[in-house]
Amino acid sequence: MKTSSLQIARAAYQPKLPKILKNQVKLVEGEKTQSVADQKEIEELFPNTYGMPLLKFEECSENPNFSAINTGVILSGGQAPGGHNVISGLFDGLKHIHKDSKLYGFLMGPGGLVDHKYIELTTEIIDEYRNTGGFDIIGSGRTKLEDPAQFDKGLEILKQLDIKALVIIGGDDSNTNACVLAEYYKAKNAGIQVIGCPKTIDGDLKNDMIETSFGFDTACKVYSELIGNIQRDCNSARKYWHFIKLMGRSASHITLECALQTQPNVCLISEEVETKQQSLDEIVTYIAETVAHRGNHGNNFGTVLIPEGLIEFIPEMRVLMDELNDFLADNDDFSMMDKNKQRDYVISHLSPKNAGVYASLPEGVARQLTLDRDPHGNVQVSLIETEKLLAEMVGVKLQQWAKEGKYKGKFAAMTHFFGYEGRCAAPSNFDADYCYSLGYTASLLIANGKTGYMSSVKNTTEPAEKWVAGGVPTTMMMNMEKRHGAMKPVIQKALVKLDGAPFQTFSIHREQWAKETCYVYPGPIQYFGPTEVCDQPSKTLLLEQGKTI
Amino acid sequence: MKTSSLQIARAAYQPKLPKILKNQVKLVEGEKTQSVADQKEIEELFPNTYGMPLLKFEECSENPNFSAINTGVILSGGQAPGGHNVISGLFDGLKHIHKDSKLYGFLMGPGGLVDHKYIELTTEIIDEYRNTGGFDIIGSGRTKLEDPAQFDKGLEILKQLDIKALVIIGGDDSNTNACVLAEYYKAKNAGIQVIGCPKTIDGDLKNDMIETSFGFDTACKVYSELIGNIQRDCNSARKYWHFIKLMGRSASHITLECALQTQPNVCLISEEVETKQQSLDEIVTYIAETVAHRGNHGNNFGTVLIPEGLIEFIPEMRVLMDELNDFLADNDDFSMMDKNKQRDYVISHLSPKNAGVYASLPEGVARQLTLDRDPHGNVQVSLIETEKLLAEMVGVKLQQWAKEGKYKGKFAAMTHFFGYEGRCAAPSNFDADYCYSLGYTASLLIANGKTGYMSSVKNTTEPAEKWVAGGVPTTMMMNMEKRHGAMKPVIQKALVKLDGAPFQTFSIHREQWAKETCYVYPGPIQYFGPTEVCDQPSKTLLLEQGKTI
Repeated sequence: MKTSSLQIARAAYQPKLPKILKNQVKLVEGEKTQSVADQKEIEELFPNTYGMPLLKFEECSENPNFSAINTGVILSGGQAPGGHNVISGLFDGLKHIHKDSKLYGFLMGPGGLVDHKYIELTTEIIDEYRNTGGFDIIGSGRTKLEDPAQFDKGLEILKQLDIKALVIIGGDDSNTNACVLAEYYKAKNAGIQVIGCPKTIDGDLKNDMIETSFGFDTACKVYSELIGNIQRDCNSARKYWHFIKLMGRSASHITLECALQTQPNVCLISEEVETKQQSLDEIVTYIAETVAHRGNHGNNFGTVLIPEGLIEFIPEMRVLMDELNDFLADNDDFSMMDKNKQRDYVISHLSPKNAGVYASLPEGVARQLTLDRDPHGNVQVSLIETEKLLAEMVGVKLQQWAKEGKYKGKFAAMTHFFGYEGRCAAPSNFDADYCYSLGYTASLLIANGKTGYMSSVKNTTEPAEKWVAGGVPTTMMMNMEKRHGAMKPVIQKALVKLDGAPFQTFSIHREQWAKETCYVYPGPIQYFGPTEVCDQPSKTLLLEQGKTI
Repeated sequence: MKTSSLQIARAAYQPKLPKILKNQVKLVEGEKTQSVADQKEIEELFPNTYGMPLLKFEECSENPNFSAINTGVILSGGQAPGGHNVISGLFDGLKHIHKDSKLYGFLMGPGGLVDHKYIELTTEIIDEYRNTGGFDIIGSGRTKLEDPAQFDKGLEILKQLDIKALVIIGGDDSNTNACVLAEYYKAKNAGIQVIGCPKTIDGDLKNDMIETSFGFDTACKVYSELIGNIQRDCNSARKYWHFIKLMGRSASHITLECALQTQPNVCLISEEVETKQQSLDEIVTYIAETVAHRGNHGNNFGTVLIPEGLIEFIPEMRVLMDELNDFLADNDDFSMMDKNKQRDYVISHLSPKNAGVYASLPEGVARQLTLDRDPHGNVQVSLIETEKLLAEMVGVKLQQWAKEGKYKGKFAAMTHFFGYEGRCAAPSNFDADYCYSLGYTASLLIANGKTGYMSSVKNTTEPAEKWVAGGVPTTMMMNMEKRHGAMKPVIQKALVKLDGAPFQTFSIHREQWAKETCYVYPGPIQYFGPTEVCDQPSKTLLLEQGKTI
């Protein structure tokens, strides 16, 4: 593998660990815990892993004298910067516990456990991946571990390799399933501990116990670098509006964080759109008003940040898509029809309100809503180019206002979508340190015989040496939600809180950012410079922890 | 203006200057020069600025004792990283020459000179923009200075501000026009010197005298960071082909440089396509064969780099677009026709070969070729989403091969276009140093009374202190070319040379890169780390100067 000069230099970086973990530690048990809601149901579903205490590591003088432990590790779901550092922290921790401990990586996600595909992770392999982005060390996958048959199949290989513990690195769903697995193995007395690690660039796996999920910091910094570059261009050329869509289907944390970092003219937050029950036309009008205000003052340029999932949070679009899904299911008249007649056919058959919304959509998007369907017969929302939809509709509205004499500017739009550009970036110092600490902490939870816990590193807005390491019972973060028609125990997803400090900070400034040009240009992630450049956590995390930005 | 922590830290960076410029220098004249072609015509057009000698600065012991000089500066055309450093180098040089020298910036490009829009650039303003990206210090624009009426209008304000010299920072066209202006003012004995500086991220303004244009290094490093991130994602998820289009309409230097930095599976070079007279189907087949080979070996992922201008370099597409432009000009039948009948109408009216090519195009692109036309009635090539066109056509071909049993893989494509993400990035150390040196050199050319020159800094693959500073007569780089129907003197555009070291290096490796997975992940531009990470010039420049990479 040919490596870049930065990779070579970066390989030597020793991630910062909480000071406490550099010493001999003992595990201190806190209060017994309860799930955030639906305590009775969750307890019934997790009789062996419910109600366990919070755990915290503290310094101790005696050497605990652990024996060697073989451990397996799985990367689950979408890539996030820092995954390799969780694994290297786990590896170093296990080797510190006992030099004969072994670490096995299951290949291409949870499927590797079921299909018995694995490699042993040796020092040589680990060293090649320290502080790098990507999940390519063992690959990742989206197979869901939900079925006892899978669990039993996995158990075979775990027994065969004499593995005593499994670390699952994933998002909210994967950690829920990790806990189901922990409960299953415990109930069965299988002798396999299961520990989770909080991963997702979306930032939606966090709560009182988990301050942030790893990867969010790096991904947002990459997107903010690009948004900043575009804003500098926009402010130099002074002739384009850039509509920038950012990854994040269900929560808008990424978009909000990028707005806090770059101060764009417009930033839409899905959670606000849903709460205020905004219509598509209201959103378009809001953007167009900002464009018009700036244009009437000679500033025919600007930036609009859009969360990927926006369209699903606009109530009227949701209703429209639901009716379309029903109406078009097995509709042979429609599918056999000349393509050019489909639009009129749809409009004439929808209920009046939905027909109106559908008719207001630009042709390309309207077609996408009726043509591209997933295997379940649903609209493929991820294919909808919301950034183009909004740019086009804003343009139409402005043309009308120009005719009415309300708008005198010029409007030309460019669109962008950033997602894959950030998921596998090399981790920022924050993510490199945080991930390494999460992995190292997981090894200590394993050594102490714990299962059904997530590795937890807190106090993360302080310098790394003051970070606090411990474990959180996964059941503590769960509630019951409807999934595919049935009630399931799941870790509560963290959406943007409209009364939270990050949104409030944005909300106070957005009018100024819209009218004036207040762009900030964060530039690329730095690894070697002064600490105020290289070691800062995300603005979201700082604000959530009561700090100022 | 709120500035990011990186900007604050970066403001303190003192760009490296050639050692020679830190001392007292004298100007040494070399041989008289000739234009690269059409000597007779160029000499006739530039009687006062033709044939001047090459210039080089050398150390001298005596203090030249210059008087104060007021200078104007213009940013022309598209943004490129480092423009602010040319201006700060020029400013520092002028102040070094005499503390009472003043620098005026004309606003929003060459139009600012004609319209008398300017600001005085003070120490306070300059300090705010050192080492930053963008052209926002004075803005840029695309007004062409071609007409004596503009020159005379400009002269009014130059006289009024007692300006003795004008520095024009631009690409090949802008530098050509700068020389026309130099000639005009010299012929008129107006007492205004004009000096050019070589800017363009496209990298097509270079030759034996100008080793590289500024901005190319930074822009390519930003794009390569993103391509590397996508490749790491692609190699982790192992399920997508990413089709990535990169800025660069007429030359493919950016795409080639990014390929040398990241080692993608496929990279198309427009100059090769044109030289080999490749058809669209040949290109699609080449990509599809690579996808099929990888897919048949279980690797259903990869990357394809595509230069923005590709479509215009495919001979059959050029012929098709020419016929379409003629056929559709003032064609009322077509424009009044039901949109859904236009495609068949076009196919039935084109000449047989063009009809075949047109019929092979996906619907969206075919429509774009007939619908969106610029004010001159031509196809708007920049609107054609070549990356989607190729992804779709490759998909169709693979489906056919799958039916024939020749292909057993899975193909899913993602598309990206990177351009605006890199034009205004904060300059790399290379561009920061190179630009500052170009600006500083320009001030010395001015102090020495020169006009019709471009600022030149050579030996740029060595450490900055060994760089060589001087001036190149702009006429030396010119030849006669047909523009809008008339022969004009222009600076020869540097296209990718198929026998040059950068393309040859790529060409030797591409088969291996296609079949194996040889991705390199360059990561983001670093400013504070070890010199092998922070101070490397582009691979293209290294190879062109006979170095290895």
